[in-house]
Amino acid sequence: MPSLNRSTIRVAFQGERGAYSEEAARTLLGPEAEAVPHRTFEEVFEAVAKGDANCAAVPIENSLAGSVHKNYDLMLEHALTIVGEANLKIVHHLITPPGVPLEAVRRVYSHPVALAQCERFLRAHPQMEAVPAYDTAGSVKMVMERRRSDEGAIAGRSAATVHGAQIVSSAIENHTQNFTRFLLLARPEKALEIKVPDQASARKTSVVFQLGNRPGALFKALAVFALRDIDLSKIESRPIEGKPWEYSFYLDLLGDSADPPVARALANLGEVTESVRLLGCYPRAPAAR
Amino acid sequence: MPSLNRSTIRVAFQGERGAYSEEAARTLLGPEAEAVPHRTFEEVFEAVAKGDANCAAVPIENSLAGSVHKNYDLMLEHALTIVGEANLKIVHHLITPPGVPLEAVRRVYSHPVALAQCERFLRAHPQMEAVPAYDTAGSVKMVMERRRSDEGAIAGRSAATVHGAQIVSSAIENHTQNFTRFLLLARPEKALEIKVPDQASARKTSVVFQLGNRPGALFKALAVFALRDIDLSKIESRPIEGKPWEYSFYLDLLGDSADPPVARALANLGEVTESVRLLGCYPRAPAAR
Repeated sequence: MPSLNRSTIRVAFQGERGAYSEEAARTLLGPEAEAVPHRTFEEVFEAVAKGDANCAAVPIENSLAGSVHKNYDLMLEHALTIVGEANLKIVHHLITPPGVPLEAVRRVYSHPVALAQCERFLRAHPQMEAVPAYDTAGSVKMVMERRRSDEGAIAGRSAATVHGAQIVSSAIENHTQNFTRFLLLARPEKALEIKVPDQASARKTSVVFQLGNRPGALFKALAVFALRDIDLSKIESRPIEGKPWEYSFYLDLLGDSADPPVARALANLGEVTESVRLLGCYPRAPAAR
Repeated sequence: MPSLNRSTIRVAFQGERGAYSEEAARTLLGPEAEAVPHRTFEEVFEAVAKGDANCAAVPIENSLAGSVHKNYDLMLEHALTIVGEANLKIVHHLITPPGVPLEAVRRVYSHPVALAQCERFLRAHPQMEAVPAYDTAGSVKMVMERRRSDEGAIAGRSAATVHGAQIVSSAIENHTQNFTRFLLLARPEKALEIKVPDQASARKTSVVFQLGNRPGALFKALAVFALRDIDLSKIESRPIEGKPWEYSFYLDLLGDSADPPVARALANLGEVTESVRLLGCYPRAPAAR
């Protein structure tokens, strides 16, 4: 199957121009790809499912805040497959319209996770009221449209650049070790058309499985990997809708699903679980700097 | 150690009067306990750590949205211990000031998780704009203070009752199987003073452990329970701050930490992990109806 020319790739992302997700999309697909903003994650997934976009870049896990469960759920709902991943270092800035200095800011808009990650800065500036909003770059867009003399937003550098705003205080997050992992998702039948960098690098495989509520069930599931010395890079439990206190497990392993030991482990996993689904096999991203 | 008279117990919770956390506190401690509202979870934990409150009731997991990671982090930070748990059925209502009918509502305030859980209702009423706010009961308090003719809030029944507001559309959540598990936390040296119902019921033990990044590490940790047929009711991974992509594991098991097989399993767990901490041993809550 011929792979798409990069300049013809349409990649959907949630948020406004300059969002961290757009940065991740460009890291994975280069500057030529056409990045298309959407208001909600539901719209992002629908754009790919309906073929309006070739793929989507969505955050799946932050190293401080944990997993973005909603996107795991939407990935299952829309039967998309993972074709790539990127790790992005998250650096938050206080951003205002040109002419509004740090001292004038009384209200700061951003996504609740970003506000929480800048809690120390906000506590040190008690005159600023933190106001939760739907996203980071969208908050910059909003304060630029309103142009009030006492409003700012917390977002990444590219949000300031794209919207013509200024950074009045940089790197204001509590912890500098703040990374977000993004997944690039596509329809399974179109997965081979999407080429991401590092195709030659080591590969990662993601699966989701459900367990019956029996003692030792998870132990047996993990045994299929441990007995073959397969390294797991992540395991995460997620409540199953409509079955309170039962869980799905999301698991990432280092290896290609076509490698014989991994293939045998996955076949074995099917025997000891209620259901298993392969979410994708893709090049492992380099660690973010 | 004498246990506190229930009417003298001060229990801290996050949110405004009528919050789901206040309901959970009353389920655990009865109507006589003095429930003290706090603006943030940080303030709730500090109130207990400083002795201003005897205990705190905090949400730890929702059956649809997943774990409240922040409260796991704060529990470790403040070295509190779990003395009880409660499962609450969550039913969201659209609430307005008296005289404001459903048809007049144009803006709906609530916590982002509650807004997400009522997504279908909001999509069916496109004239309503969903506005994220810090909490559910607090949104009811706010719309009652503002008394605008076109604003409502999404919260539980007791928030409407406490603030003198009306329910204009009831049970508007997407999924009726919506439960939140709350923990009752106290300082370890004061834990025995807090008496919760069902002291005679089966017990549960919660621990947190950290693993080195070695293949099979989690498998070995789970083996200590599987080999003794100890039933795990929950396992959850959580990123470790400052160590991107390394995880702590939170584990709940059915049994008393003083039972010989459980005590031996926990000792064994210490041998195969980097660190283990007992978070509490407490009566298991009945399933919510």
